[in-house]
Amino acid sequence: MKKISPKITLVGAGPGDPDLLTLKGLKALRAAKVVVYDALVDERLLLEAPHAVHVFAGKRLGYKKFSQTDINQLLVNHALVHGSVVRLKGGDSFVFGRGWEELEFARKHGVSVEVIPGLSSAISVPALANIPVSHRDLTRSFYVVTGTLSNGAFNTEIEQAAQLNTTLVILMGLNQLEHIVTAFTKAGKSETAIAIISNGSLSAQNKVQGRIDSILGILEATNIESPALIVVGVVVDLENDLLASQWKKAQLN
Amino acid sequence: MKKISPKITLVGAGPGDPDLLTLKGLKALRAAKVVVYDALVDERLLLEAPHAVHVFAGKRLGYKKFSQTDINQLLVNHALVHGSVVRLKGGDSFVFGRGWEELEFARKHGVSVEVIPGLSSAISVPALANIPVSHRDLTRSFYVVTGTLSNGAFNTEIEQAAQLNTTLVILMGLNQLEHIVTAFTKAGKSETAIAIISNGSLSAQNKVQGRIDSILGILEATNIESPALIVVGVVVDLENDLLASQWKKAQLN
Repeated sequence: MKKISPKITLVGAGPGDPDLLTLKGLKALRAAKVVVYDALVDERLLLEAPHAVHVFAGKRLGYKKFSQTDINQLLVNHALVHGSVVRLKGGDSFVFGRGWEELEFARKHGVSVEVIPGLSSAISVPALANIPVSHRDLTRSFYVVTGTLSNGAFNTEIEQAAQLNTTLVILMGLNQLEHIVTAFTKAGKSETAIAIISNGSLSAQNKVQGRIDSILGILEATNIESPALIVVGVVVDLENDLLASQWKKAQLN
Repeated sequence: MKKISPKITLVGAGPGDPDLLTLKGLKALRAAKVVVYDALVDERLLLEAPHAVHVFAGKRLGYKKFSQTDINQLLVNHALVHGSVVRLKGGDSFVFGRGWEELEFARKHGVSVEVIPGLSSAISVPALANIPVSHRDLTRSFYVVTGTLSNGAFNTEIEQAAQLNTTLVILMGLNQLEHIVTAFTKAGKSETAIAIISNGSLSAQNKVQGRIDSILGILEATNIESPALIVVGVVVDLENDLLASQWKKAQLN
């Protein structure tokens, strides 16, 4: 009998488009005996591991609900029985994922863990929607925050963040949009540009944008749903500025 | 004669390890007629485009110094003459790169631009050094900032950032370490954990860590050089906490 070498590899799958996986992530997937994936992972990626056991551990109607404790135990059990387990998560495992908890549990149980970072939607989704999170002349920083705390409440850290001259990227914030608007309004920034992007990197990608004082009305007229990403800051205007300058040039010719 | 379709693809190459390129980035590289790359890109990636023209446009002793204006023009010229140009940059093109300037210049000259995000070192380098930028129980945000402004000065935004309860990630900050230590000391955080990582994701990866009040002394005893990434926050301690709990468990057995 071949000796089992238990190992868990935490692989970030990126924002959605399966081609945004890293080469290293793909190699891990192809070598996996078990793939434990969540709801944000494109199932086309599972085709890269056709002989592996595929375990869905996300939230989906009609499926067993896994707690984080369940998932930690599941990963370790599979590693001990089958050897190489890939834990495939949307985005990056350490950006509001619970990758560290999985790593910690596994190492405490003697299972080695490798981390393969993925493209976080925090940076890549704005980029693919023509919003650079930083720009030499405009903002030399960006601040990434979850809009909703684990107890479901608004993350009031956003009230402090609204005071800063930075690009604010908010994940899990669509349901908190009124609080976000209030925070920026109180900071005297009712005219700051804001964009909301859903299905980032996919063909269904949808972006709406406006100002802090107009976005609630704009959102009402759309069908954007969670999960969505919110970006607040001057960089949101860059695409329109560019289009306007191209339009002016075309008028002159 | 075949008609030329001028196109520039901005590809983020990730933090260093060539396997951390995305599948989409690799495909773009393989289809390129010209690859314009900078100093932080691993030249093994050029082997994926063996028939393309390779243009080095970074800073290196003995090479022509390119200004950003030179690079913008170079990209457009190559696209108009050869068609498909890949602009390959370390990390992600929009994280303290000057990707937007290249995109803007090209579009204004009628050249289409596609953006393929890369793994930013801001998230992936800490991850590969056992530092998750966020953790459900500890920090629900992270703040990424450049330590040095384009005029060479310290980015004083870090003084504000030091007041916040977040993970602070500082790129291009090693030469500003004294200023960073002062900012956190003034904010009453002399015992906060800080790590410095160089050559992230490569076999030469090197991490040192300590506290705000000890890191200058610790750094003196090492040979860490720029470019390096700095992380400040409680998440820096997670690895040592885990090792300590494993060690205690081993003592008990």
